[in-house]
Amino acid sequence: MAAVDMEQLLAQITREIEPQIGTGSVADYIPALAAVDPGQFGIAVALPNGECYGAGDWTKPFSLQSISKLFTLALSLSENDEDIWWRVGREPSGNAFNSLVQLEYENGIPRNPFINAGALVVTDHLAGVVGDATEAVLDFLRTEAANPDIRCDEEVAASEEAHGDRNLALTHFLASYGNIHGDVRDIVRQYVRHCSIAINCRDLALAGLFLARHGIRRDGSRMLSHSHTKRINAVMLTCGTYDAAGEFAYRVGIPSKSGVGGGILAVVPERCSVAVWGPGLDRRGNSVAGVAALDRFTALTDWSVF
Amino acid sequence: MAAVDMEQLLAQITREIEPQIGTGSVADYIPALAAVDPGQFGIAVALPNGECYGAGDWTKPFSLQSISKLFTLALSLSENDEDIWWRVGREPSGNAFNSLVQLEYENGIPRNPFINAGALVVTDHLAGVVGDATEAVLDFLRTEAANPDIRCDEEVAASEEAHGDRNLALTHFLASYGNIHGDVRDIVRQYVRHCSIAINCRDLALAGLFLARHGIRRDGSRMLSHSHTKRINAVMLTCGTYDAAGEFAYRVGIPSKSGVGGGILAVVPERCSVAVWGPGLDRRGNSVAGVAALDRFTALTDWSVF
Amino acid sequence: MAAVDMEQLLAQITREIEPQIGTGSVADYIPALAAVDPGQFGIAVALPNGECYGAGDWTKPFSLQSISKLFTLALSLSENDEDIWWRVGREPSGNAFNSLVQLEYENGIPRNPFINAGALVVTDHLAGVVGDATEAVLDFLRTEAANPDIRCDEEVAASEEAHGDRNLALTHFLASYGNIHGDVRDIVRQYVRHCSIAINCRDLALAGLFLARHGIRRDGSRMLSHSHTKRINAVMLTCGTYDAAGEFAYRVGIPSKSGVGGGILAVVPERCSVAVWGPGLDRRGNSVAGVAALDRFTALTDWSVF
Amino acid sequence: MAAVDMEQLLAQITREIEPQIGTGSVADYIPALAAVDPGQFGIAVALPNGECYGAGDWTKPFSLQSISKLFTLALSLSENDEDIWWRVGREPSGNAFNSLVQLEYENGIPRNPFINAGALVVTDHLAGVVGDATEAVLDFLRTEAANPDIRCDEEVAASEEAHGDRNLALTHFLASYGNIHGDVRDIVRQYVRHCSIAINCRDLALAGLFLARHGIRRDGSRMLSHSHTKRINAVMLTCGTYDAAGEFAYRVGIPSKSGVGGGILAVVPERCSVAVWGPGLDRRGNSVAGVAALDRFTALTDWSVF
Repeated sequence: MAAVDMEQLLAQITREIEPQIGTGSVADYIPALAAVDPGQFGIAVALPNGECYGAGDWTKPFSLQSISKLFTLALSLSENDEDIWWRVGREPSGNAFNSLVQLEYENGIPRNPFINAGALVVTDHLAGVVGDATEAVLDFLRTEAANPDIRCDEEVAASEEAHGDRNLALTHFLASYGNIHGDVRDIVRQYVRHCSIAINCRDLALAGLFLARHGIRRDGSRMLSHSHTKRINAVMLTCGTYDAAGEFAYRVGIPSKSGVGGGILAVVPERCSVAVWGPGLDRRGNSVAGVAALDRFTALTDWSVF
Repeated sequence: MAAVDMEQLLAQITREIEPQIGTGSVADYIPALAAVDPGQFGIAVALPNGECYGAGDWTKPFSLQSISKLFTLALSLSENDEDIWWRVGREPSGNAFNSLVQLEYENGIPRNPFINAGALVVTDHLAGVVGDATEAVLDFLRTEAANPDIRCDEEVAASEEAHGDRNLALTHFLASYGNIHGDVRDIVRQYVRHCSIAINCRDLALAGLFLARHGIRRDGSRMLSHSHTKRINAVMLTCGTYDAAGEFAYRVGIPSKSGVGGGILAVVPERCSVAVWGPGLDRRGNSVAGVAALDRFTALTDWSVF
Repeated sequence: MAAVDMEQLLAQITREIEPQIGTGSVADYIPALAAVDPGQFGIAVALPNGECYGAGDWTKPFSLQSISKLFTLALSLSENDEDIWWRVGREPSGNAFNSLVQLEYENGIPRNPFINAGALVVTDHLAGVVGDATEAVLDFLRTEAANPDIRCDEEVAASEEAHGDRNLALTHFLASYGNIHGDVRDIVRQYVRHCSIAINCRDLALAGLFLARHGIRRDGSRMLSHSHTKRINAVMLTCGTYDAAGEFAYRVGIPSKSGVGGGILAVVPERCSVAVWGPGLDRRGNSVAGVAALDRFTALTDWSVF
Repeated sequence: MAAVDMEQLLAQITREIEPQIGTGSVADYIPALAAVDPGQFGIAVALPNGECYGAGDWTKPFSLQSISKLFTLALSLSENDEDIWWRVGREPSGNAFNSLVQLEYENGIPRNPFINAGALVVTDHLAGVVGDATEAVLDFLRTEAANPDIRCDEEVAASEEAHGDRNLALTHFLASYGNIHGDVRDIVRQYVRHCSIAINCRDLALAGLFLARHGIRRDGSRMLSHSHTKRINAVMLTCGTYDAAGEFAYRVGIPSKSGVGGGILAVVPERCSVAVWGPGLDRRGNSVAGVAALDRFTALTDWSVF
């Protein structure tokens, strides 16, 4: 698909999903997120050759939130091969409702790396290897996006830390099963900080390109094996969009990871990575405008993994 | 991939997975299944042009079991468009353990069409449209495989009916939420009978080919829209292999539906359908030899959706 | 306490709780119960010597509902000694929400004889000994109350049977664990019929007197050992009022068994049995006026087990 | 019952339950408890007039553990009237398995004051009133037992704090619902310390006498109203012995609170308080020898609340 087509395509999508922009509810569990203007929308597509196209508010930064779980997972696999899979599973977790009882029932092994418990274990794992998980994620994002200005939004991080009882509860609970090796408060701080990274659609699409290129980074070096990359894509497809992964696979049909900041990073293997952003969320916590845009994107390109 | 290659490939896979044949445990919840010789293994691949290749015990019939849920779903969608989705969801169900409480929590709407509760609702739905769900499935299988001899194994069906308290419990429970419209005992009987169909790998691969051809049947007629077919593939990938769907997507990476008879039907969109069979099951209920064979198949062909 | 006092006491209680009469919601899951006039209230007290006092609508019959579970339990213990405790536990069940998962988790052994699952097992057990559980309960009630006219309200029974999917689900589920020995439909029918017995406060208080007399029936014969009787009282106190047993013990402080027909049978060991009735239920399913009356009764008499 | 009888009675009980002494498993979740010699047993009975009788190891101190929850509850009620009931319920909690999901389902309000979550809330509540909950409990125990030497076993406390992830998890979880007002680490420290108090049977029986005297302390002053005392007894009976409260009420029949240190404090209203101790626990966490001794005690005296 030629460059001019992609620009037209993104313009068409932005136009078509306009009625959805501003609908849904902005995440309100911390004041710093609740203040975001819901009427924004951005989309960016990065091609394997490094070209990047965008539309709407695609250069405005937003809060990465759970999408950071994708990068800590990828970095854990790259540094440590398969060790992480002794500490976290790969199964969809059913609904949010029973997350704690499930963790208890399965002896402190979270179902997958994208539920909060799993991401805390991955953060702990990565911290054990590289020292500071947040710095490792920031370093990776800056390099892949060629943007040294990507940083943690300290206001969001402070706001999340101030409402951190649930994360502390979860991490102490994991620690009671021996599945946290670092200091609980330090791991929660690192976790909160990499979730609080501010990034825009352009940079996010570029940072996710390694998943479309089967593990090859911007500079041509191999980060993950072909096989590892496919596996991350599988985890994204089955577990990447909270308790709507089945619906999402059914409707959109490509591996994706969403965050309550309203961003979604999606991958069409060998073809492109796509970053969308719209702060209004549906009841499952996924961006209303973002899901609609990805739905249109796969419908118009006929790019689906199925 | 030329015919000769496929034959060589299946021979190689059969050789490589030989150590796995006979491992695992044969389903033993009904006597008729427990009596199956565990040392058998078959594999068949059907190409979009209708060619079919096989190896091992690929022409020996085995019990379809949960794989029938795929056909009742496809037939429900073909006859009724989207109506079924008002009565059953599309989300992975987490672990088997909490299935009943989840059903209660979600007011009698099963999480997806491949858990037993969901399949009972789909059977009821299909029965409401065509009269007898088992006959509809048999008719479809016979036509697609061009084999009029495919039939229900009445001994297996009788054995399952004699141990049917759990299915009756589930169906009455669904009925208490108004999500069964037919007679409970009749629906359970139809459900048990389509699960008890005996089929071999060859016929199963041919019967699943419509999923690789985006909805086109053997005779060239359209059964499902392109979009519906992709959606069924998505449900297979996220929910098709019991509580190992995440692991399966991670390891094998193609849409698949397994049954406790030891069969698995898998699809590589636009390329082929694959049927494997080995009676020994792992602790999640999936064929040990079958999973190993599909793993080798996707590794050797590099055919994965990710 | 002299006869005249008891009459005064019941009059005072009836006066004091008058504001509560008619509040709460009448059980509406079957039409036959929903039609009851909520503005009724009755109370009766039977003394160990067989004297019986009453006030309000104490001679109007109402639907026994779950209170029948007390009589099937007592009759099971009297006929079969301790055998029933191999099939049902004695622990409070926490909230209603997780009843099914708990049953699954505990392999088909209901937590106690007063949750529906437990009462179905007790009915099956009693049916195995005496043939028909409903007839055994009716026979007992008629004899103790010296009223041969007590009978099953066939309209209520038919209405419950017509909405019986949940009971059938539960009973098939128990049968799948081997914990129902009779025919599922027959056991459910017997269960529904003994719940549908119509009785008034006077007759109910007299029928419950054996619990205050440590196992001695009206005719002076021993039905239960002293020890068995105390044990039934213990089960009533810890499990007799749905998910409000703790609150009830805390507030009222005497063993009681309630039913959604609005009746409650309570026992003060060695002193009296009390039957109250008011059709309006609180959100836990206990009679609002009935609980209030028992609360006043124990406060005014200072009869509490604590 | 005369003094001489009580001594004979305790001697008889000690003799009869001898085979049980040393059976069961000593609590091993912290090293300091695992080291206790399992072959010990003590029993003490305190009468309303202050007389105290004992047998066996009745003057050897053991770890109070969960029995301290009874004293924090009593002190909370005495200081604050009913306020605590806004923050914690009174219902039995069913099995331990689902404690966390239940807490989530009920929005951070623990089911009762004797499960860990509830006791942490009560500790927080008491700390808010008196400053340090442990000091308040120690002060109460020393005064009632007239033994100024009762103290916290700092080795046990340190051992519990070192394994405190689960308590920290629970307390942060409660805090996330706003149901902890103090500093999480400080509340957990106070909780751990009052559980780590070392006390012997004699002192414990004396300290529990206020429950048999309807709220009157050793010095004749009123600590709790008659009504509050009965209510604490009701909570003990329905929730005092972990997931065996129903069984315990059925078998022993008097309000009791057990701890994993092997102690149990029981009350016969108006008659006596009883403290028993044997370190070997059954699978529910109650002292094997202690339960057997209380069983014999109520059988031989015929003192039961039922």
